Amino acid sequence: MKLYGSCLSPFVRKVAAVMDLKGLDCERVESIPGSVPRDISPLGKIPALVDGDLKLADSSIICEYLEEQYPEIPARPTAPVDRARARWFEEFGDSKLAELCGDGIFFQRVAKKMLTGEASDEVRLAHTIETLLPPVLDYLEGELPAEGFLFGAPGTADISIATHFVNARYAGYELDAARWPRVAGFIERVSALPAMVRQFERETDLMAKMARPT
Amino acid sequence: MKLYGSCLSPFVRKVAAVMDLKGLDCERVESIPGSVPRDISPLGKIPALVDGDLKLADSSIICEYLEEQYPEIPARPTAPVDRARARWFEEFGDSKLAELCGDGIFFQRVAKKMLTGEASDEVRLAHTIETLLPPVLDYLEGELPAEGFLFGAPGTADISIATHFVNARYAGYELDAARWPRVAGFIERVSALPAMVRQFERETDLMAKMARPT
Repeated sequence: MKLYGSCLSPFVRKVAAVMDLKGLDCERVESIPGSVPRDISPLGKIPALVDGDLKLADSSIICEYLEEQYPEIPARPTAPVDRARARWFEEFGDSKLAELCGDGIFFQRVAKKMLTGEASDEVRLAHTIETLLPPVLDYLEGELPAEGFLFGAPGTADISIATHFVNARYAGYELDAARWPRVAGFIERVSALPAMVRQFERETDLMAKMARPT
Repeated sequence: MKLYGSCLSPFVRKVAAVMDLKGLDCERVESIPGSVPRDISPLGKIPALVDGDLKLADSSIICEYLEEQYPEIPARPTAPVDRARARWFEEFGDSKLAELCGDGIFFQRVAKKMLTGEASDEVRLAHTIETLLPPVLDYLEGELPAEGFLFGAPGTADISIATHFVNARYAGYELDAARWPRVAGFIERVSALPAMVRQFERETDLMAKMARPT
C-alpha cells in the first residue's frame, strides 16, 4: 500500500498510526495538499491511499476500508452502538478539533508562515485558545476515560482525538492539565503508544529540516 | 427512533431517505441547527438520531450505524472495495457538493434571506455556478452510471449525491442536461425513488409555508 500525504498533517498521522496499530505496512509518499494526482484523490486532499487497484481519499474512509479489508487486528470496537460512538469521536476530531487545533492554532503559528510568509493572526489565535477551545475541552473532559482508552484496546477513535492535540503542541500550545486532567492524561497515553511514537520520529526530522534556515 | 433536523437540510433528507429505503420508521422532530439538545448533538448540528439509549449526530455516522444495527435491508454494497468507493461518493456529496449546492447556491438564494434578511451575494452565486461547479460536474459525469445506480440497488451513496442537487433545484438552479447527461439522468432516477419522493412531499409543504407572507 502507498499512503500519500505530509506526515505533519493530523489526518495523515491518524491513518499512519492506525495502519501501524493494525500491523499494516505502507510506503509513504510525502505530499502536500494539491500535489496528489487527481485520479488518486479527486479533490487533491491528503491523506490518500493506493491499495492495488483501489485509490481512496479521506482519512475516515481509508480507516473504514482498512478495518473491513484487514480485520485481523481491529482498531475499533465490535458492538454497533460502540462503533457508532467511536465514529462520533473520530468525526469530532476530524471536524471540531481539526478546526481549532489545526486551522486555529497550528496553521496560525506554524504552517501560515511557511506557506504564505504571513505572520500569525494573534487575535484569532488568542480567541481560539481562550474562548473556543475551553468548552470543547470541557465536553471531552466529561467523555474521555480517566484510565485506558475509549473502547478498551487503543483504536482509531483514540488516535483521531489525540492527533489534533499533537499539532497544537507543535505550535506551542500547552493544555492546562489541572483544569482538564482527563483530557491531558488521555492525550499523554495515546501519544505514548508505539504506533504514535513512530510517527513522531518521522515528524521531528521534518520539523527540524523546516526550521533550518536555507 | 427519533430523527432531529429540518426536512430542508440535505443531510437530514439523506438520513430520512436511507431510513425509508431500509424500511425503518422514525418520528421526525423538526429542528434547526443549534436547537437540538446538546446531549443529543454535542455540536448542535443536524441531523441527530435517538435510538433507545443511543444519541448520535452526523449523517454519515448515523447511516453507518443504521447499516450495522439494522442490516436486513442493506443500503450499501457488500465488498470492502465497493463499500470504500460508496463511502467516498457519500463524502464527496457531504463535503464538495454541500459546499457548492448548499452554501454556494441554496443558502444564497433561499436560506440567507430567511435566516438573516440579507439579499443573496449574486457575485458568489454566479462564481459557484459558472466556475466552481462545472469541474465537479465533469468529475461526476465520468463516475456516475449511464443507467441504474452506483452499486446495483439504490443506496446511501446515490442518495448522498442527489440530495444536494435537490437543494440547488429549490434555489432555481437548472443542471445543463445536454452538457452533463449522466449526472442529470442519475439525479432524475434517484429523485424518482419512492424513498425520496416521500421526502419531497414533506418539504413542499414547508417551502410553501415559508414562502407565504405572514
